[in-house]
Amino acid sequence: MENKIPYKIYLEENEMPQAWYNLRADMKNKPAPLVNPGTGQPMTAADLAPVFCDELIAQELDETTPYIEIPQEIRDFYKMYRPSPLVRAYCLEEKLGTPAKIYYKFEGNNTSGSHKLNSAIAQAYYAKKQGLKGVTTETGAGQWGTALSMACSYFDLDCKVYMVKVSYEQKPFRREVMRTYGASVTPSPSMETQVGQKILAEHPGTTGSLGCAISEAVEVATTNEGYRYVLGSVLNQVLLHQSVIGLETKAALDKYGIKPDMIIGCAGGGSNLGGLIAPFMGEKLRGEADYQIIAVEPASCPSFTRGVFAYDFCDTGMICPLAKMYTLGSGFIPAPNHAGGLRFHGMSTTLSQLYHDGFMEARAVPQTEVFAAAEQFARVEGILPAPESSHAIKVAIDEALKCKETGEEKTIVFGLTGTGYFDMVAYEKYHDGKMDDYIPTDEELQASFAKLPKVE
Amino acid sequence: MENKIPYKIYLEENEMPQAWYNLRADMKNKPAPLVNPGTGQPMTAADLAPVFCDELIAQELDETTPYIEIPQEIRDFYKMYRPSPLVRAYCLEEKLGTPAKIYYKFEGNNTSGSHKLNSAIAQAYYAKKQGLKGVTTETGAGQWGTALSMACSYFDLDCKVYMVKVSYEQKPFRREVMRTYGASVTPSPSMETQVGQKILAEHPGTTGSLGCAISEAVEVATTNEGYRYVLGSVLNQVLLHQSVIGLETKAALDKYGIKPDMIIGCAGGGSNLGGLIAPFMGEKLRGEADYQIIAVEPASCPSFTRGVFAYDFCDTGMICPLAKMYTLGSGFIPAPNHAGGLRFHGMSTTLSQLYHDGFMEARAVPQTEVFAAAEQFARVEGILPAPESSHAIKVAIDEALKCKETGEEKTIVFGLTGTGYFDMVAYEKYHDGKMDDYIPTDEELQASFAKLPKVE
Repeated sequence: MENKIPYKIYLEENEMPQAWYNLRADMKNKPAPLVNPGTGQPMTAADLAPVFCDELIAQELDETTPYIEIPQEIRDFYKMYRPSPLVRAYCLEEKLGTPAKIYYKFEGNNTSGSHKLNSAIAQAYYAKKQGLKGVTTETGAGQWGTALSMACSYFDLDCKVYMVKVSYEQKPFRREVMRTYGASVTPSPSMETQVGQKILAEHPGTTGSLGCAISEAVEVATTNEGYRYVLGSVLNQVLLHQSVIGLETKAALDKYGIKPDMIIGCAGGGSNLGGLIAPFMGEKLRGEADYQIIAVEPASCPSFTRGVFAYDFCDTGMICPLAKMYTLGSGFIPAPNHAGGLRFHGMSTTLSQLYHDGFMEARAVPQTEVFAAAEQFARVEGILPAPESSHAIKVAIDEALKCKETGEEKTIVFGLTGTGYFDMVAYEKYHDGKMDDYIPTDEELQASFAKLPKVE
Repeated sequence: MENKIPYKIYLEENEMPQAWYNLRADMKNKPAPLVNPGTGQPMTAADLAPVFCDELIAQELDETTPYIEIPQEIRDFYKMYRPSPLVRAYCLEEKLGTPAKIYYKFEGNNTSGSHKLNSAIAQAYYAKKQGLKGVTTETGAGQWGTALSMACSYFDLDCKVYMVKVSYEQKPFRREVMRTYGASVTPSPSMETQVGQKILAEHPGTTGSLGCAISEAVEVATTNEGYRYVLGSVLNQVLLHQSVIGLETKAALDKYGIKPDMIIGCAGGGSNLGGLIAPFMGEKLRGEADYQIIAVEPASCPSFTRGVFAYDFCDTGMICPLAKMYTLGSGFIPAPNHAGGLRFHGMSTTLSQLYHDGFMEARAVPQTEVFAAAEQFARVEGILPAPESSHAIKVAIDEALKCKETGEEKTIVFGLTGTGYFDMVAYEKYHDGKMDDYIPTDEELQASFAKLPKVE
């Protein structure tokens, strides 16, 4: 096989990004501010200070600085597992018989198994710099918790993780990985917090949700001296850190003169998608280039495709600020048989605004089709994908097959956010034909929307 | 941090090896031939043909050709996950406060989680080329079985895996990964084979060993039309394929003008060690350079350090040819509490001869110290290492600490063969203080040696 484009494009260390890209700087319609649920007023830095680290608050609120330098300590850490490869999916293309050219940015080659480490190390760094003792967080599939455990271990910070109960039970080994890195892990909802007790009283036997776990982690951070809360998705600061994915992707494509037609990413809270698309969306916003950008979400938790664009709580316990986003309602808890992460009821405010303004589209896919795509991908490309990432695989395959019909030689780039080594219980269910596709009814969603907070 | 040597050295695709290196071509004392246990005569290609693929037999018996071209199909597959990075362990060096320079060749960035894929794809390729229906094999820790499943899936071959029972039970998710790639997996010893039935009758309740599983896989291969047996370690052909590790390592070091003082690898059957050291040992054999080469084995299965150099069966069921190797006796079964793979009773004939002739040294390390080294490594270098690989980490750290005492700036290269994502049961035992260090007594070993076959 004679190819000018290698199977994997790795940037040199000196080609790696030195600054994160802040997409909001190029948005005409800025994302709506976080709002204090008590006063209805936008949250100030002072309001946020008990919850978040100071420098992260500054990043959260910064809507104008396009590039923010990556501190040298973080760049050194990035060098341990970055650059991640941009892979040309030659084998998948051949298997599909498509004229499309498929690339994926693979973020799974680190022990957290996903892109989450990109933001975890940044957040741990700023916590350490502020002289904190430790941080608290939630984790769903466990990737974010693992990433944060690694980052905290590196900077010698305490790390308390509240893990969505269904994931805690389905992924027993995740806990041991976090423990290897010195973190404590509690299944959520727990009886350790007031909000956990309240949620358990209202929903006995609940398998939990990211929204519940966030409430618990925030309570613990704000009631313990020297602790702050950190979050692995949704927030602007997270999308900022994750822009390293898109910046590397663009640099790798540019190096070989490749211009993508389509960029596809899975979307739960938006961390991967927001990071992957950042520089491309920037070009689109500035009118310098056009790309088809597709968010893929699970049909069981379809915030973009079936949610409403409204102010809502980010957490189930309703102790966090309100964010204007596409949401299913903060009380919405996806069915426990949904295996693939991406369980958050809302979506990044930045991505929500961009979607609302028509700069991107969204598709919802049922999980059995996602696992079928995952297995097909694994067998030809070798990598065992995380269920989350496989949402993007599913749509990339769909689009490549469309190209096969039309003969179009589109260039498709998708984000392969991580590996599925800790998802074998779900794979087993799929292999045994015991996985089904739960899709919420309109009535369920309407009931959830009816509980949205009233903000003008 | 200003470094001329990057954290990770990746070769370009055009710098990747185009031929494997056959170490035996440079050995004056060749490894002793495999011997037919019935006749006492060296095995011929015809003798081996019912068991192995024809081209692999040719490679097995070839003692004179120094370089054997890697077929294009295999090189294309290699490009999907190779080159593997040669990583400079800056963070570990800093943590240890050592003047030593530590590098590791990381083979874990593929779904098999180890270097095993390097030979699996080669063996599957030759099986396909011969027109076979499928292959059978054994697997211990599960890495080889996973690798072979991936390779067979790629070439559309049937794959029957006999998995050491203790690993099958400790690593339930490994089975699902192999199943994802379409393989069948049977815990060994099983009642499916005559030899399995015999072993179970003699040792009821045995947790199995690689030796047992090999016997079963060979029986199935030789009694089913269109099947052959493939093996992930020990054999010369495997060391040949694994030379890609050492060749890449050497090319990466040469690219930056680095000359190692010491090369360290873990040793079970010898596949990783033999591959890693191949080109360096070649220089040593040809008198062009000198290196300190250290094999690290578990204290619970110490074939180099406490075994005898003698002809022995490669399998427990005594149906395979005899090999002259350092062995603990084919009836030796390591304690079930030993978690770290490397459970084979013997050692590659090539490495055994080199060790016997004084070209390398060996150390045995107890498993709790191995897990302590693994955790220390994980926390600073990020990668969660496989227990097998951690044997090499343990000795690399020991040697780096010696440099700290003496002030020597030695360059240490070790093989990090894989990741530990499927070893969390063992990590959990270690975290809970439930792991102990079983070391066989002299009496046990003497009793095992007494059963060695008599070959002049």
